Amino acid sequence: MTKGLIIINTGNGKGKSTAAFGAMLRACGQGLRVCVVQFIKGTWKYGEMEAVKRFSDLVDFFVIGKGFIFDNENSEEHKTAAKEAWGKASAAILSGAYDLIILDELTYIANYDFVPVGEIISVLNRRSPSLHVIITGRKAPPDLLAMADLVTEMTEIKHPYHQGVKAQKGIEF
Amino acid sequence: MTKGLIIINTGNGKGKSTAAFGAMLRACGQGLRVCVVQFIKGTWKYGEMEAVKRFSDLVDFFVIGKGFIFDNENSEEHKTAAKEAWGKASAAILSGAYDLIILDELTYIANYDFVPVGEIISVLNRRSPSLHVIITGRKAPPDLLAMADLVTEMTEIKHPYHQGVKAQKGIEF
Repeated sequence: MTKGLIIINTGNGKGKSTAAFGAMLRACGQGLRVCVVQFIKGTWKYGEMEAVKRFSDLVDFFVIGKGFIFDNENSEEHKTAAKEAWGKASAAILSGAYDLIILDELTYIANYDFVPVGEIISVLNRRSPSLHVIITGRKAPPDLLAMADLVTEMTEIKHPYHQGVKAQKGIEF
Repeated sequence: MTKGLIIINTGNGKGKSTAAFGAMLRACGQGLRVCVVQFIKGTWKYGEMEAVKRFSDLVDFFVIGKGFIFDNENSEEHKTAAKEAWGKASAAILSGAYDLIILDELTYIANYDFVPVGEIISVLNRRSPSLHVIITGRKAPPDLLAMADLVTEMTEIKHPYHQGVKAQKGIEF
């Protein structure tokens, strides 16, 4: 029997969302039905969005969040977008319509307390026992880590931006 | 102008090959021509292989390596397969036919000294200045790390196998 896993990709490095994107396509290769909710707009770039189109028979894709928040910014708009995204995600999690749900940058809304982590955990606990969930984002809250089956930390060792290299088409976006 | 990057995903965690797979599909979304050489058979599972089929117009895919080597095993067969895989990879790197080359588990053949790391670096240095290369595998040799533009270390924090959970279809394979 399928045991639905909670998988978290966290850390400050690249590859958190890219690995989730790769996992999504692996699942599609197995014919699984996938739902992606992006809590921050722009984490998946043009290249990913175009690639997803080839799997539109298997993937529902929602980008609801706004861009990254900056500290000096009024956060009300971000909070509203985050709550809307979480509403969509909760509905998808509890719908029974999917085999895999990807919550891209979910940690962001928990860390800004736009949605209490207790509410997130409560919804995850009520999911179908066979539903897999992949969560990405920096600084995953301890309570989420505690309930996860698989946690990977991606650490940036070396980054071209630090060496003055521009973002490269097809690689960075 | 495009500056070809050398990207390394290393560490003992999951996500090294999955992130490379995701990067491949992002590149496909941008219309880049991709070549994948797998130095170990079976790193990409059934799900990935099926997903790749939807990009057969853009991706050349070679699985040449054998399975993981075990310490008590005669390594001659592995060495022969590794050299053959490296020959194919070198030809692809120097062909000018691709925008991105993925060398999945390349570190393996360097660490077993099936192919000297100096020879690998020499071929990489002779590539087209716009060619991106993604290298995956545990224990990336220091000389390879030194020439890389982007290095991410994937660290396993928690793994379901340690908790007695079986590998899950569409997630692990």
